[in-house]
Amino acid sequence: MNYQQILEEIYEELQPHFGEGKVADYIPALGKVDPNQFGFSIITTDGKCYNVGDTKQRFSIQSISKLFTFTLALDRYKKGLYDRVGVEPSGNPFNSLVQLEYEGGKPRNPFINAGAITVTDMLISCYGGNEGAFESVLHFIQDLAGDESIYFDHEVSKSEMKHGYRNLALANLMKSFQKLDNHPREVVQSYFKHCAISMNTQMLARAVLYLANNGTDPLTQKKYISESHAKRINAVMLTCGHYDASGEFAFHVGLPGKSGVGGGIVAVVPGKMGLCVWSPPLNRYGNSHLGTAALEKFTDKTGLSIF
Amino acid sequence: MNYQQILEEIYEELQPHFGEGKVADYIPALGKVDPNQFGFSIITTDGKCYNVGDTKQRFSIQSISKLFTFTLALDRYKKGLYDRVGVEPSGNPFNSLVQLEYEGGKPRNPFINAGAITVTDMLISCYGGNEGAFESVLHFIQDLAGDESIYFDHEVSKSEMKHGYRNLALANLMKSFQKLDNHPREVVQSYFKHCAISMNTQMLARAVLYLANNGTDPLTQKKYISESHAKRINAVMLTCGHYDASGEFAFHVGLPGKSGVGGGIVAVVPGKMGLCVWSPPLNRYGNSHLGTAALEKFTDKTGLSIF
Amino acid sequence: MNYQQILEEIYEELQPHFGEGKVADYIPALGKVDPNQFGFSIITTDGKCYNVGDTKQRFSIQSISKLFTFTLALDRYKKGLYDRVGVEPSGNPFNSLVQLEYEGGKPRNPFINAGAITVTDMLISCYGGNEGAFESVLHFIQDLAGDESIYFDHEVSKSEMKHGYRNLALANLMKSFQKLDNHPREVVQSYFKHCAISMNTQMLARAVLYLANNGTDPLTQKKYISESHAKRINAVMLTCGHYDASGEFAFHVGLPGKSGVGGGIVAVVPGKMGLCVWSPPLNRYGNSHLGTAALEKFTDKTGLSIF
Amino acid sequence: MNYQQILEEIYEELQPHFGEGKVADYIPALGKVDPNQFGFSIITTDGKCYNVGDTKQRFSIQSISKLFTFTLALDRYKKGLYDRVGVEPSGNPFNSLVQLEYEGGKPRNPFINAGAITVTDMLISCYGGNEGAFESVLHFIQDLAGDESIYFDHEVSKSEMKHGYRNLALANLMKSFQKLDNHPREVVQSYFKHCAISMNTQMLARAVLYLANNGTDPLTQKKYISESHAKRINAVMLTCGHYDASGEFAFHVGLPGKSGVGGGIVAVVPGKMGLCVWSPPLNRYGNSHLGTAALEKFTDKTGLSIF
Repeated sequence: MNYQQILEEIYEELQPHFGEGKVADYIPALGKVDPNQFGFSIITTDGKCYNVGDTKQRFSIQSISKLFTFTLALDRYKKGLYDRVGVEPSGNPFNSLVQLEYEGGKPRNPFINAGAITVTDMLISCYGGNEGAFESVLHFIQDLAGDESIYFDHEVSKSEMKHGYRNLALANLMKSFQKLDNHPREVVQSYFKHCAISMNTQMLARAVLYLANNGTDPLTQKKYISESHAKRINAVMLTCGHYDASGEFAFHVGLPGKSGVGGGIVAVVPGKMGLCVWSPPLNRYGNSHLGTAALEKFTDKTGLSIF
Repeated sequence: MNYQQILEEIYEELQPHFGEGKVADYIPALGKVDPNQFGFSIITTDGKCYNVGDTKQRFSIQSISKLFTFTLALDRYKKGLYDRVGVEPSGNPFNSLVQLEYEGGKPRNPFINAGAITVTDMLISCYGGNEGAFESVLHFIQDLAGDESIYFDHEVSKSEMKHGYRNLALANLMKSFQKLDNHPREVVQSYFKHCAISMNTQMLARAVLYLANNGTDPLTQKKYISESHAKRINAVMLTCGHYDASGEFAFHVGLPGKSGVGGGIVAVVPGKMGLCVWSPPLNRYGNSHLGTAALEKFTDKTGLSIF
Repeated sequence: MNYQQILEEIYEELQPHFGEGKVADYIPALGKVDPNQFGFSIITTDGKCYNVGDTKQRFSIQSISKLFTFTLALDRYKKGLYDRVGVEPSGNPFNSLVQLEYEGGKPRNPFINAGAITVTDMLISCYGGNEGAFESVLHFIQDLAGDESIYFDHEVSKSEMKHGYRNLALANLMKSFQKLDNHPREVVQSYFKHCAISMNTQMLARAVLYLANNGTDPLTQKKYISESHAKRINAVMLTCGHYDASGEFAFHVGLPGKSGVGGGIVAVVPGKMGLCVWSPPLNRYGNSHLGTAALEKFTDKTGLSIF
Repeated sequence: MNYQQILEEIYEELQPHFGEGKVADYIPALGKVDPNQFGFSIITTDGKCYNVGDTKQRFSIQSISKLFTFTLALDRYKKGLYDRVGVEPSGNPFNSLVQLEYEGGKPRNPFINAGAITVTDMLISCYGGNEGAFESVLHFIQDLAGDESIYFDHEVSKSEMKHGYRNLALANLMKSFQKLDNHPREVVQSYFKHCAISMNTQMLARAVLYLANNGTDPLTQKKYISESHAKRINAVMLTCGHYDASGEFAFHVGLPGKSGVGGGIVAVVPGKMGLCVWSPPLNRYGNSHLGTAALEKFTDKTGLSIF
């Protein structure tokens, strides 16, 4: 199939809609991004790359970081991870405290904020503190993407912290249930640093390729995680990867994926490819408006789908 | 792959656990089933059948009927169906009223009770009443399974109605939001008749084969639903098919599936096969305890998974 | 104090606002009431009567009936009543199912719909069926008001039943928790008959006088309920008598009271008097807009308050 | 009535039950209190004092402080206070976040934790910071009780802060809704200082006497708050003073009151007296077990009640 041509078709079809939706502006650092940017990158398991649009422009990966911290924690804690985080869709917005209170402080899954904060807490304990944890996460991502220039945006991270009351509420609530080992403020700070990592679509498509190949990078042959764990990460992405619109995404796109409020979405076609699309304006669920549309067009045009 | 041998291995491994779990006993007609029964049937898209255990014993399909009524309503209403039922996991037990009240009477998805009641209401409107709707559902299932002997168990249906207060509460709540066209009692009666249809694992594996083949029965070439709708039914099964344990099922089994409190579970491997396993005792989420275990073993042993 | 003059002042001050608010119109029989009516009646424990406005016009007492059924059931079941109904404010709208589901079908108090339905269920069991229960309630009210002409409005009752899906949902939900003895439909029918009883403000002020006098009618010396029970009924009226605006009513008016969507509100000044005000249009909580204002003016002008 | 004799009767009747219930032990400083202490003090509006038991032993007033901060804020902000805090019972535990999230961060009433934290935030803004606010609260209480020796327990306050994650979660949640002016941590620290004020039953009975006399201290003739505000404070105490057992307290005791987890309960009989009872062990709602029993006995024996 001519993926390059398909990407270009999608680009052309979506261009009239550039700028539709609403860029996340709860922090100034995110709000000032040019809303008319759009990039779409594919990398296949045999190493072919296809790109259209602004695929070299770095953006804040935000919640896509949850995928990487989850993988890293799963590698370290194995099944023990699931004692502290579930794998069930929440049926609630990503930052809701309601379910967390009713369910005694155990997050439903690693892709809602409470779950990612818990995963971060576990990484801090495992790597001897905030700095060790952040270094490990950063190196893990650099390694996956094969690019040592990847770094985090200090301004974004600081700005998140300044407006991070909701996440502090989540962390303090979990701490009140004795579900965090470390200090809530410290954990949230660390979590925001992960969210503030900057990457472009080429890097991100590359960085998720291991999930299209049963946990092993098909180009370097590095095994990041067992086949069984890799399949399960994909399953959790499918059922929980888009907050309270995960069902819609599975329904319309039909691929495991994970989105971030920076406007990025990564996805994988098992056995075939890693994908990343980016367009800053969001739909009402907090997922990239045109990113979702682009992926839906992609699976429609290619017939690729896990179903 | 030698599927017959794999089924027999699974049977042998699970036999020491026969009877574990708890048979649904909220109505006498279900409670008196022998808990030690177990059957597992596979039929591939090229027509090969594999069976182990009690695969000819008919049982109450219960919520598996939701899959068939959903397909039929989707065929009749197309996208219009989604105006009345969502495709999002609920994050709540299958019979909860809480979310329904907060969300104005629109069910989250067609696989929770409220959703299936809404779908039944639409079929009643479409087929000119309760009888027309039931006849259509029954014939549709007989046609899918290629077996005209399939019928419903009058005793089960009557007994459900006698204890169906929770479902009447759901239907009356939706009616109070003007979300049902027909009378709540009538709709619930019709819904219980669908649930009381009796089939065995061979019939059910056969009946879901169209979902493994993009909506067209691979053996008869009858097209039941469009490719796009078929993929989306699978997506909804994956995200919502096992109530509030759907994430767990996607995680452990990795296949689209739908369970019923009669102890049956159907599943599909897209492009490859339809499956049905049956064992009456349930786990705490209301899904067949050994049925779930059998499917997990099956995907472990075969490596089949959509991820 | 010159109560007659105070009532007339209040009437004059409120007259420019007659018709403000929204008459309950969920059933036609209620919606067609003239919104410009207003009546206010007081009767003191030494038998003096004061009236202003439309105090002879009968209207549907609706939820004020909950006060009478609660008293009657308390007289019959004594403390046993509280095994089935609490005395705690609900913090939720009067017809919410959420709390009822979380709390296993036991209503928070006798003045939300679920609570009054439970009380009705108990009266049906106690008086040998729907008819016996209704006769007893009706006679009890006739006796309290000293007026045998009091009857219920068949049209209102029938119309309520026709649109009573929410209450049927509540009753079926409680039945699903085994919290009702009788059939949900039957109980709701009986409940609607109580709500459809028609009285005027003179009758109602008279009918609550026993609560201003420790359970004994000060004019006939009939003891309807023990002093201790009477005080507790007043306490429940204060904390729960106005649905999710009970705190506001206690705060602004400072008297135990009970409102109905027909626009009536009864209240008592312990040791002094019974009151009833009526004006059909409601505020957003479902309580009479001008009725609430009139009672607030009354306690402001007289300094009467339990606090 | 011979109040002294009644207090002694109550003491004697309850003595066999001393120690029943469970002392609050979520912080060590509270947990080490001797559970067998019991004190009951009354002071009438004409200045007569009655005491039985450990009425000179100081204890942590905890949530009783909410009554004083509410009065002070009401005096400063008048009706403007109600823009930020409601007067409605919550129907939820005192530290629940659920309702706060659903209702956009506005607390239901000033006597749940979220409400008292909001009131504290307003006092901090009004008195130019944490210290100014605390000084004002302390002096206000000293003045009400006529005792300048009243102070706060530094150890308790520090210990609360160390375990105060739930309250930090509440404060951060409100801040995320822009409902706090000051920093969440600072506000919670200030709130804990109010809770850590130590007083005995004699001081507390004296300190609430203004609420039994329409806002004016009957012994000093100092007017602390208008008559109308005083009545309304009493109304809020009645409907919301005992968390999710406020209805029960109104029902059994029939007086406006406010409890704290230190085991103290204050109450007033309007026009007659201020009361304070203290016994450290709590019932399951977090109110003093024997304190509640003592007040119920008191109103039973004296017939005093607002109803």
